[in-house]
Amino acid sequence: MAVVVGTTVRTIDWDEGDAATGPAVAVIDQRALPGTFRVRRLATVDALVDAVADLTVRGAPALGAAGALGVALAVRRHPDDADRVRAEAERVAAVRPTAVNLRRGVERALARLDDGPGAVVAEACALLDEDEATNRRLGHRTADLVTQLCGDRPLRLLTHCNSGALAAVTWGTGLGAIRELAARGQVAEVLACETRPLLQGARLTVWELAQMGVAHRLLVDAAAASAMARGLVDAVVVGADRIAANGDTANKIGTYALACAAAHHGIPVLVVAPESTVDHTTASGAGIVVEERAPDEVRAVAGVPVAPPDTPVYNPAFDVTPAALLAAVVTESATFRHGAWARAALPA
Amino acid sequence: MAVVVGTTVRTIDWDEGDAATGPAVAVIDQRALPGTFRVRRLATVDALVDAVADLTVRGAPALGAAGALGVALAVRRHPDDADRVRAEAERVAAVRPTAVNLRRGVERALARLDDGPGAVVAEACALLDEDEATNRRLGHRTADLVTQLCGDRPLRLLTHCNSGALAAVTWGTGLGAIRELAARGQVAEVLACETRPLLQGARLTVWELAQMGVAHRLLVDAAAASAMARGLVDAVVVGADRIAANGDTANKIGTYALACAAAHHGIPVLVVAPESTVDHTTASGAGIVVEERAPDEVRAVAGVPVAPPDTPVYNPAFDVTPAALLAAVVTESATFRHGAWARAALPA
Repeated sequence: MAVVVGTTVRTIDWDEGDAATGPAVAVIDQRALPGTFRVRRLATVDALVDAVADLTVRGAPALGAAGALGVALAVRRHPDDADRVRAEAERVAAVRPTAVNLRRGVERALARLDDGPGAVVAEACALLDEDEATNRRLGHRTADLVTQLCGDRPLRLLTHCNSGALAAVTWGTGLGAIRELAARGQVAEVLACETRPLLQGARLTVWELAQMGVAHRLLVDAAAASAMARGLVDAVVVGADRIAANGDTANKIGTYALACAAAHHGIPVLVVAPESTVDHTTASGAGIVVEERAPDEVRAVAGVPVAPPDTPVYNPAFDVTPAALLAAVVTESATFRHGAWARAALPA
Repeated sequence: MAVVVGTTVRTIDWDEGDAATGPAVAVIDQRALPGTFRVRRLATVDALVDAVADLTVRGAPALGAAGALGVALAVRRHPDDADRVRAEAERVAAVRPTAVNLRRGVERALARLDDGPGAVVAEACALLDEDEATNRRLGHRTADLVTQLCGDRPLRLLTHCNSGALAAVTWGTGLGAIRELAARGQVAEVLACETRPLLQGARLTVWELAQMGVAHRLLVDAAAASAMARGLVDAVVVGADRIAANGDTANKIGTYALACAAAHHGIPVLVVAPESTVDHTTASGAGIVVEERAPDEVRAVAGVPVAPPDTPVYNPAFDVTPAALLAAVVTESATFRHGAWARAALPA
């Protein structure tokens, strides 16, 4: 399987198709990974909505793309019915209400509706291009900072969940930065936490690392602190779901546990996310509502029951790491360190 | 299913049988839990060896009982062939070489070989009785200490892996202390970490808590720090696999991660284990060899593959928590606190 995700194949893309097929949104089917690499053509808004709902497409930046492309699909299907397009757009935005990027993507494409179908499609495609450029810039900026913090040498990096090409249009955020460090010859090994309950680390991050040809090991989430104690971790690099104005960061459940252990060992934790993930209207992590997900995610693993049925479950989707435990939050244009954001010079 | 493990049915016991069946070792089949409660009669040393190897019986105290009962089985099978009994005993002791209790149990029963089969069986049964008494004493002593540390009120307790009746002859160590606290009306809720990779928390601890009728919730290991941050945990109570002379404690992988998070929140961590778990010949945790287990435990969950095949894995069976992160190590006759062991007055 000669697929090189992150550098060539996009996780989500516009496919103009031909007269016979019509246009579609092409997505890597993340539910089939790591067993099967399969690109699915979603030719209707219904198909796109289902793909977002069932996690065929996931990851904040990728969902932003899905939102914009959903509007593009709707407008090509119903070029003369703006009301219908708006209704379809709302349906897309509402599939995952907590995914702020999804609605932002929808709104951005919808804003061009008066300019005709071509303009809407162009806007969606521009969002995709920008996502790729943003991710690459994130990678460069984070790699520079990691080098400054840890030295210009092959590093042992630990990551959680999947913040790779599969969570974005391509390249990735946290794992994108690791991709950049690997390109610079600065990665000795990546430890990938499996990330229960949904195992995005085991299923997706390990697959991406194998694709990259980067040395890696998979571990259960509970083993990360032990790896730190044994000197196997120079830095922790993760993505983010939402970042408050003061740098407090909501990310996949377990990130905070890693930050507690890293603090105990003096190991830097870096959060890597696009500027669009920073919510400047939320002052601190205390204002971030932590969503609880379905108990069956914990009672069963990959569909196999592992606990008595009806066992009560505590299953928060993410946790909030206070900025004080983070070495830095890096976006494409700013860096949060030591209690304050510093604007970066934007590249020419 | 009206089974009340921990107070009536023993996890492992001697079954004299009758003229038709002959004697056997009766064990609760832990591989069948939580789906099915089943007691298996192991009538041969071969059957016992297989049951220890395949984790039908597990947990340090229960393995000590298995060792002694294995010798009892051998001597009843071959009452006139001491060499054969010694060979069978060695076979039992060697099934799980790192389980020090297993060999200790074998050696204790074997020491009575010259006194005849009756004496060997009696010695094995005495070990079982003592294990139960030890566990109950542990529970009382730990419950007293928890009350002293956290107050005489309904507490939110967090535990990891299974240190319950199923890990011992009956009652349990860490979970036995929680059982005692529940009997005193001092448990509001127990949070049980699922304990990847082998899910002893989800499969066994949750089952025991349901049996006890104690309010509980299951969580992924990575969510424990988040629970602490949200004020859901008053104390962490766990068992131990091996304790160094300075109080450093080896326990199931993830215990150290919990201790790092608990330290960050000022939450006490209590280790509860019989005196036989303390290895006074090992000065500190640095002398404890951490065994790595098979990679497929992490690559698959309950037999279902979750990562690409051949993914390299970091899978330590346990981690070592420095005594400095523990509020106390409690045995039936001593307590380690603030850098030193204090002998307790033994009950009359």
